[in-house]
Amino acid sequence: MKMPKNISFDIEDYINRVRSFHGHVAPGVIIGGFMVHIARVHMPEGALFNAISETAKCLPDAIQLLTPCTIGNGWLRIFDIGRFALSLYDKHSGNGFRVFLNPKKLKDWTEINSWFFKLNPKPGQNQEFLCTQIKEAGGNLCEILPIQVRPEFLKKKNKSKIVICPSCEEAYPSQDGNVCRMCQGIFNYYSEGKILIGVGTDFGFYDQKE
Amino acid sequence: MKMPKNISFDIEDYINRVRSFHGHVAPGVIIGGFMVHIARVHMPEGALFNAISETAKCLPDAIQLLTPCTIGNGWLRIFDIGRFALSLYDKHSGNGFRVFLNPKKLKDWTEINSWFFKLNPKPGQNQEFLCTQIKEAGGNLCEILPIQVRPEFLKKKNKSKIVICPSCEEAYPSQDGNVCRMCQGIFNYYSEGKILIGVGTDFGFYDQKE
Repeated sequence: MKMPKNISFDIEDYINRVRSFHGHVAPGVIIGGFMVHIARVHMPEGALFNAISETAKCLPDAIQLLTPCTIGNGWLRIFDIGRFALSLYDKHSGNGFRVFLNPKKLKDWTEINSWFFKLNPKPGQNQEFLCTQIKEAGGNLCEILPIQVRPEFLKKKNKSKIVICPSCEEAYPSQDGNVCRMCQGIFNYYSEGKILIGVGTDFGFYDQKE
Repeated sequence: MKMPKNISFDIEDYINRVRSFHGHVAPGVIIGGFMVHIARVHMPEGALFNAISETAKCLPDAIQLLTPCTIGNGWLRIFDIGRFALSLYDKHSGNGFRVFLNPKKLKDWTEINSWFFKLNPKPGQNQEFLCTQIKEAGGNLCEILPIQVRPEFLKKKNKSKIVICPSCEEAYPSQDGNVCRMCQGIFNYYSEGKILIGVGTDFGFYDQKE
């Protein structure tokens, strides 16, 4: 691994981007910004890296805002084990860095400590003071650990054929079985109404012409 | 539900945003843009809505680009059952709309059909022609279905206490057990090196001052 590169991180610019993307200036996304920055300056220049977030809360958005890794392009994965930590790693070799919040380091930052351990109910939090403390603390809350991602987590999923489910008549990957996973009862999250309308240009609500 | 609102959808502007966020102009994210647009014009004005993607590929990024729902703020969830479909729904009532690609509608669009069913290897695809067809087809590839999200999928997770794992000494939600899920062997994705350095202002690579 090469030495840290001089990648800039403008916290005020980042906070504006968080407000726009995440919907509000969430403390976890701001701390996450410092964490992602610490990890990425350690990655060798030009490395094709993937990301893992160890929580579904906040950190995935910091990763999506500051790296090329998104949940939809597959370079970011979420292993939701509830730890406030993330890893960036070379997608081929698996070498990378894990950055995690060290709870012991929170004791010097009363407002961050209260927020992180949920000691105060939300209305009792001083959001402005909390944000000020996070900006002051920056990367001081974290540790960095060189890691090797295990080979079984580097493997690409087999890309199977796309076939039509005989039950719902929608397309699905054939490796899932004789019918799609929904028709197997997995994540059966909705009850249906009838098909409302065939949509598209009938609506005329968007202009596809240049 | 109110009638569709006149929300604009500028496909060229959207394509530029896809290039920047997703990293490349992926066909699935472009089709997803039309799908999200169709769903959101059907949601009543002012509704607080959440989103579900039925695949981890491409569609989550379309949702994140065109709605306030992100994976990190918890308003977007991925139920990865491999169907090319997404739902927007009122977070309280569960009423909403599911938009899905209808495979039968692909037969009129040869290049989209080849791409979707993986009939050609990637180097054989005519990316420009594919993108042209997608822009022409727009929402015509899809169906929309009014849905009711089942109550068990509307429930908020209990927010448990945050405690320190006696094994790894990191913080985790107490509801996960006596040690954190990683220390239980769940998603044990890396082998460790030694702690490299306490990071933060020691690095001096970012300027936290205004």
